[in-house]
Amino acid sequence: MFGVTILGNNSALPVYDRHPTAQVVTLNDQLFLIDCGEGTQIQLSRYRIRRSRINHIFISHLHGDHYFGLTGLITSFGLMNREADLHLHAPEPLKQIIDLQLAAADTRLPYTLHFHPLQNEGMIVDEEKFSVECFQVYHRIQCWGFIIREKKKARRINKETIHQHDIPTVFYENLKDGEDYINPAGEITQNEAVTIANTPARSYAFCGDTIYNENIADCVKDISLVYHETTYLKDLEDRAASRFHSTTIQAGNIATLANAKRLLIGHFSSKYETLDEFLAETKEVFPDTELALEGVTFIIS
Amino acid sequence: MFGVTILGNNSALPVYDRHPTAQVVTLNDQLFLIDCGEGTQIQLSRYRIRRSRINHIFISHLHGDHYFGLTGLITSFGLMNREADLHLHAPEPLKQIIDLQLAAADTRLPYTLHFHPLQNEGMIVDEEKFSVECFQVYHRIQCWGFIIREKKKARRINKETIHQHDIPTVFYENLKDGEDYINPAGEITQNEAVTIANTPARSYAFCGDTIYNENIADCVKDISLVYHETTYLKDLEDRAASRFHSTTIQAGNIATLANAKRLLIGHFSSKYETLDEFLAETKEVFPDTELALEGVTFIIS
Repeated sequence: MFGVTILGNNSALPVYDRHPTAQVVTLNDQLFLIDCGEGTQIQLSRYRIRRSRINHIFISHLHGDHYFGLTGLITSFGLMNREADLHLHAPEPLKQIIDLQLAAADTRLPYTLHFHPLQNEGMIVDEEKFSVECFQVYHRIQCWGFIIREKKKARRINKETIHQHDIPTVFYENLKDGEDYINPAGEITQNEAVTIANTPARSYAFCGDTIYNENIADCVKDISLVYHETTYLKDLEDRAASRFHSTTIQAGNIATLANAKRLLIGHFSSKYETLDEFLAETKEVFPDTELALEGVTFIIS
Repeated sequence: MFGVTILGNNSALPVYDRHPTAQVVTLNDQLFLIDCGEGTQIQLSRYRIRRSRINHIFISHLHGDHYFGLTGLITSFGLMNREADLHLHAPEPLKQIIDLQLAAADTRLPYTLHFHPLQNEGMIVDEEKFSVECFQVYHRIQCWGFIIREKKKARRINKETIHQHDIPTVFYENLKDGEDYINPAGEITQNEAVTIANTPARSYAFCGDTIYNENIADCVKDISLVYHETTYLKDLEDRAASRFHSTTIQAGNIATLANAKRLLIGHFSSKYETLDEFLAETKEVFPDTELALEGVTFIIS
């Protein structure tokens, strides 16, 4: 299972029961939280998300609608007696803010909170089965995008043919890497005889608040699912630019340029009560678009 | 109109659609916000409260469930182009936290935020028609209670008799202060002939998170309506004490000792799904008790 669940899809002013930005990415048994606007812990409860499985939190930038729920969540983890380490990847100034808030409350967390400041583009988490990269987006203050990729071996075992060959199971990982097998007698089993090419690894990109910038398309090239903000409809392109935000058409353009498989749009301005036009306009440019509706999980395929 | 509207009545971990502490006190055209837990601005919208009329915010202490919604609200006031001054009365360390958060977001507020650190017990707001006092309560960290009092002249004009006397209207305020009127000819109108004694001024006391302490009863003596926390039912008195909180019975005792007219209870622990027992237990001690249910406005009489 690889999917993203939307907890908040609104821009700064919460309205119409839409909440500030927060998303949970599920990759098998791992949960990743991207942004943590005010009320995120309440949204986690509402959608019955197992918060104890969140080990990494990523904060795109320090506008409040993207992190004002964070210290509450961190504190609640403590009240719930969390013991597992928690990794927080965020712009540097957030550390001092959290430290001050915990000190003012005389709170000592019963678990270790690792703060990883976002400084350079590139890999920020590199585990056996997944990786996370960050890249720059273009907002009024420093702002980051994130890409979560599953890792897959190039090939997988062909269950129909493998038993016709006498290959020790300890060698299976080598087979997945494309190696041939040579038995003690020197006989060769060609890799292709016992493996098949794997499907490409899937990936999810979150592009934080940003003005239109085609560099982003390069960063998220060939992504399975890209989330790109659409704060405004296309007629407000000038306002979008002046506030370092994007329109529907611009998000569609980025997805097209990136050769993305699918596009998810959100961060809707509080001035819009309904969202149908966001979908219609973006689809003009990029048909495989969906609205980031709260409570919905989008499967990444 | 003098009343208090409950926006949040839960203790630290939000559950069962109960929110962290926040209350709005309405006194005629003035709104006062007491505490501002995470999600308060969403609750203000839900209950259609005219946030532009809030000119004073009081924060009892710096546990997150009492202020993590504050910087979001302050920022939203800015996004809504507020121009009126806003007065924030709170423990000193909050200033640095807010300053850091606003700086990290590169936010400049379009209105003036006056920060008034809570330092000594006594009057903190003294206006023509109301006053606000703070007093110490007893929690794990510095914590304050607040009393909002309407101000009334001692007497009011007797509309039935005033026209039988030739008294200039500019002297009416002196009459309300109890003075007799002497006309240019030296003739005296006794004050009692043209005024009647006013009803006592009404008052509301908010006792923030606190362990049981009878000093509080002295602070809120003869109050019209007192809010006192009841984090736990009576069987958990030891747990309440160890966490610097109170039980139902203890809140009822404070209201009794204070000679309060009515008692409002809240800050219910997340361990309780239903609240009926809180009401039943507190009423054993103090019958005029009500649950601080969210969305409900309690009129202060």
